Amino acid sequence: MATAYYSKKNLGFLMYDVLDVLTLTELPIYQDHNQKVFDMVFKAAGKLSKDMLYPIFTEMDRNPPELVDGIVKVHPSVPKIMKEFGRGGWLTGSFPYEVDGDQLPAMVTEACSFIFSAANYSATAYMSLITGAAHLIVSFGNKQQQDTYLPKMLAGEWQGTMALTEAEAGSSLSDTTTMATPTDDGHYLIKGQKTFISAGDHDGVDNVIHLMLARIEGAPAGTKGISLFIVPKLRIEADGSLMPNDLACSGVYHKLGYRGCPTTQLSMGDKNDCRGYLVGDVNNGLKYMFQMMNGTRIGVGLGAVAKSTAAYYEALDYAKTRCQGRKVTEKDPLKPQVPVIQHADIKRMLMFQKAVNEGSLSLLLQCAKYLDMSRAMTEEADREKYLLLTEILTPIVKTYPSEMGVHAISQGLQIFGGSGYCDDYPLEQYYRDIRIDPIHEGTTGIQGMDLLGRKVAMKDGKAMLLLMEEITQTISAARELPDLANQASRLSEALETLQKVSAALFQVAGEKGPEIFLSDATLYLEMFGIIAIAWQWLLQGVKAQKALLDGAAGSDLNFYQGKLLTLRFFFEYELPKIAGLVTRLLSKDPVTVEMQVAFFDD
Amino acid sequence: MATAYYSKKNLGFLMYDVLDVLTLTELPIYQDHNQKVFDMVFKAAGKLSKDMLYPIFTEMDRNPPELVDGIVKVHPSVPKIMKEFGRGGWLTGSFPYEVDGDQLPAMVTEACSFIFSAANYSATAYMSLITGAAHLIVSFGNKQQQDTYLPKMLAGEWQGTMALTEAEAGSSLSDTTTMATPTDDGHYLIKGQKTFISAGDHDGVDNVIHLMLARIEGAPAGTKGISLFIVPKLRIEADGSLMPNDLACSGVYHKLGYRGCPTTQLSMGDKNDCRGYLVGDVNNGLKYMFQMMNGTRIGVGLGAVAKSTAAYYEALDYAKTRCQGRKVTEKDPLKPQVPVIQHADIKRMLMFQKAVNEGSLSLLLQCAKYLDMSRAMTEEADREKYLLLTEILTPIVKTYPSEMGVHAISQGLQIFGGSGYCDDYPLEQYYRDIRIDPIHEGTTGIQGMDLLGRKVAMKDGKAMLLLMEEITQTISAARELPDLANQASRLSEALETLQKVSAALFQVAGEKGPEIFLSDATLYLEMFGIIAIAWQWLLQGVKAQKALLDGAAGSDLNFYQGKLLTLRFFFEYELPKIAGLVTRLLSKDPVTVEMQVAFFDD
Repeated sequence: MATAYYSKKNLGFLMYDVLDVLTLTELPIYQDHNQKVFDMVFKAAGKLSKDMLYPIFTEMDRNPPELVDGIVKVHPSVPKIMKEFGRGGWLTGSFPYEVDGDQLPAMVTEACSFIFSAANYSATAYMSLITGAAHLIVSFGNKQQQDTYLPKMLAGEWQGTMALTEAEAGSSLSDTTTMATPTDDGHYLIKGQKTFISAGDHDGVDNVIHLMLARIEGAPAGTKGISLFIVPKLRIEADGSLMPNDLACSGVYHKLGYRGCPTTQLSMGDKNDCRGYLVGDVNNGLKYMFQMMNGTRIGVGLGAVAKSTAAYYEALDYAKTRCQGRKVTEKDPLKPQVPVIQHADIKRMLMFQKAVNEGSLSLLLQCAKYLDMSRAMTEEADREKYLLLTEILTPIVKTYPSEMGVHAISQGLQIFGGSGYCDDYPLEQYYRDIRIDPIHEGTTGIQGMDLLGRKVAMKDGKAMLLLMEEITQTISAARELPDLANQASRLSEALETLQKVSAALFQVAGEKGPEIFLSDATLYLEMFGIIAIAWQWLLQGVKAQKALLDGAAGSDLNFYQGKLLTLRFFFEYELPKIAGLVTRLLSKDPVTVEMQVAFFDD
Repeated sequence: MATAYYSKKNLGFLMYDVLDVLTLTELPIYQDHNQKVFDMVFKAAGKLSKDMLYPIFTEMDRNPPELVDGIVKVHPSVPKIMKEFGRGGWLTGSFPYEVDGDQLPAMVTEACSFIFSAANYSATAYMSLITGAAHLIVSFGNKQQQDTYLPKMLAGEWQGTMALTEAEAGSSLSDTTTMATPTDDGHYLIKGQKTFISAGDHDGVDNVIHLMLARIEGAPAGTKGISLFIVPKLRIEADGSLMPNDLACSGVYHKLGYRGCPTTQLSMGDKNDCRGYLVGDVNNGLKYMFQMMNGTRIGVGLGAVAKSTAAYYEALDYAKTRCQGRKVTEKDPLKPQVPVIQHADIKRMLMFQKAVNEGSLSLLLQCAKYLDMSRAMTEEADREKYLLLTEILTPIVKTYPSEMGVHAISQGLQIFGGSGYCDDYPLEQYYRDIRIDPIHEGTTGIQGMDLLGRKVAMKDGKAMLLLMEEITQTISAARELPDLANQASRLSEALETLQKVSAALFQVAGEKGPEIFLSDATLYLEMFGIIAIAWQWLLQGVKAQKALLDGAAGSDLNFYQGKLLTLRFFFEYELPKIAGLVTRLLSKDPVTVEMQVAFFDD
């Protein structure tokens, strides 16, 4: 395998030069931190990923979890990794001081997550699930719940999960049927089944704490009748001992990829003795979940770009060393074959990967910064501004890296030729691993509906307006630089097109109703994503161009020239793709809506 | 699994109505055949695929070949299937009467291949490899070779292979290093290694006959020094007995998919006793191989569309039965959930699959028809015309179904949500199985170079001109039908664009040389492919529209309306994609050529 799976230099460039994470340290909640702290954190994350995660990347895939005698057996390294993450404080980084957290900006913790996921996505998932569940307890649980569960979870001794999905309520959470019956003892009795629960059970921890959606008897139908519960695998008795809570793992899935982390089926209350503890208020479960959803969806995008980045470095390594064929201008068969990276089509595929990955990572960190700002600002108007920016970007940073990461890894695999199809090289694993990302935490179709159906129009289009202002600022900065004026104009045109398309679609909404309006929401999301990534490339271009004007030399020179050429690549090959999408989005032919089920027959 | 994996009705529509296979029976070489014969063949192929191939589709994947004690163990059904195919005459269908073949048109034998591959691609591959090797012996071998090898091969008792690839000569066949040393006994001694040889060894047959490229000692370097040999695993002694020929299988690959058929490494002449028998003339090996290449590449496209078609019927079945969510216009959570096929975005994904698959199959059969015409015509000018049409379409029919089939199956998988990612459903297998198709028998990059670098310009652009004439005829027919006039105009515009882009690229060739000229050949191929498929949809549209005007009723009505809506879909969603490609292809910025290796660092 290649020695690199991410670029420290690129991460530093994005964090400090492009997105200026240090501005956050000027704000009160992040004022204890500085570049030295961040650099130490990144260095330690790099070391941990290299020592513990990357070496078992393949091994965890080849030895997937199995359900044996009612317990899910996972790779023997899992408990060691979890404890090491707990001991090293990697699980507390994103939490506030009040719960003994380190109150690091999301930009920093997400960057670490990127490093870990690039080394080994499956192994990292165990940790992400703990912090996701713990954040719910911190945000909405009471003091006693926090005291009971957080210490063990954040020490990596107890697994956390997000237990939402049911067989008949996958994308449609409002159809959750798991029931919660109140008792006189304050707890609820939980009864039902959950499915597709990541890390829902395993032998690498002493306990599993499920943050579970269920419906309290008599609650209203639909989204307004769902509550959030803590449902432990082993419940904690008054004396601190653990005892079975009538919660069984009834199955573990055999998956295309992402095999190192178990995806499970759970059965609660077979003996009518599964206790759940209400988190926050009754019937507020979905609201709580969705308040965490920005972070979760940013996490999916980050996992996708991490896998795609690692795959890129594998492909780059192979392309530099694998000799095959000669330049098209060389007709002498006695001349030696050249490394395939010499061929323009191979460079095109590598540049595509680089463009997708570095553009995606930049946008993800940008979104994390908005999230940090929304938390750090003291004025309500500022808070709202940055929250709106986070909200509108969330479906995009979830989807673009996931969908385009699939294509990017596919191009990486293609560079290997037949070897890419075989398990002697890791590309086939990356190709399998990433395919979950357009599905979990809301499919691409659902993200499209979220963007066009909710985010663009919310608060009278204020989020959209704010984002346009941000992009316009970048365009203005780029116009000042002669080498970027052309791309600045093209992005400006694309932005006008986006606004024109948005307006046209909202007119359709008014005239034709929601079904036709939303029927191409996925295409709208795709177009929006391309434009957002073009923005981040222009932003990177501004910094790279300035660095060159400031006299960058040596390997820095190569780095910045690589950035500028990849920027050009994106504007030459990717941005023009919006033309086809726009044609469709502006069309008046509701062909998918008119299609009838019977027409598919035969 | 779904009950359908292809559509008999659609196949009949394409064969008889759209592409009129019966016109072939008016030509002398196919005059013995008629619709009754073809229908019987299709019916028998359907039955065989259903009885023997489809039931073990999953099983063959889960129990892949393993090398045990020097022999590759394959699924126990393989020998039964091969003998059944031999007994049933399925291996002789495409061969001329002179070698006891049935002289069926390629349109018919390829359609059968489609049926078999849709049921089980891996199982079908064993047969395709036999017929591919046997066709080389029939076309270029001598009488004695034909008598020695063909009967056993075409009975399914001996496997045939195409043994081209070597570790250092994958896409670059001119770098073949396997050596052939002449002996006084008439045979050659073969020494070398081959890699990625499909069905290169297995225990389902009594012998394996390799059609192998090697270089005779002292032969010129490059493509002009490669010869073709028959190299059997067991050589045939004068008394008819078989004895080891110093050819060993040294490895079997573990692959992402296509697992039912072994992909092997071979080692020849470890004891200096591997005999090879020259086929045809010395140093003509590559020429012979490339004369077979049209058929082989059509076969890859056909395999791809077969897999993608089977995946589509799985997704369709699931979408009709899986209930999840409600129409966007329905806000009452007490109303039952609806089948996901009711959602416009799901219909969009299904229509994408249908559009890609039925368009691809149509183009493949169109290309097979040109191949048949090129064989059937008695006038040299006619022969050349149809051969040129076959030649120019070959890289397209190899690539479009392969590349777009990957996307189509991915959309099918997406329809299943999390279930698509798990092996409880077959989508994840189709997703793995099809990924080989953009790689084997010439990668997509190589197909692009073949199209733009050779086919478009050959014979002063005659092939291109002939194809434009064919497409223009369809446009004229469509213009006569009011409902298709719009699409006819759009295809006409696309055709003009294609010609403009082609001219611009050839100007680049003259001004900037071959490297820049060919640097975006893959994009050119992609654009060409979209236009070719649009053509086939328009052709299908003409027939469907006429059938409706003629008063089609009942399920026929649904079928034709489905065709017309899918045609509209293709023109709304897919054809507009050429705009982005054209923008890039007409750009003067040679960004991939200018990219330097060092710029990728970090």
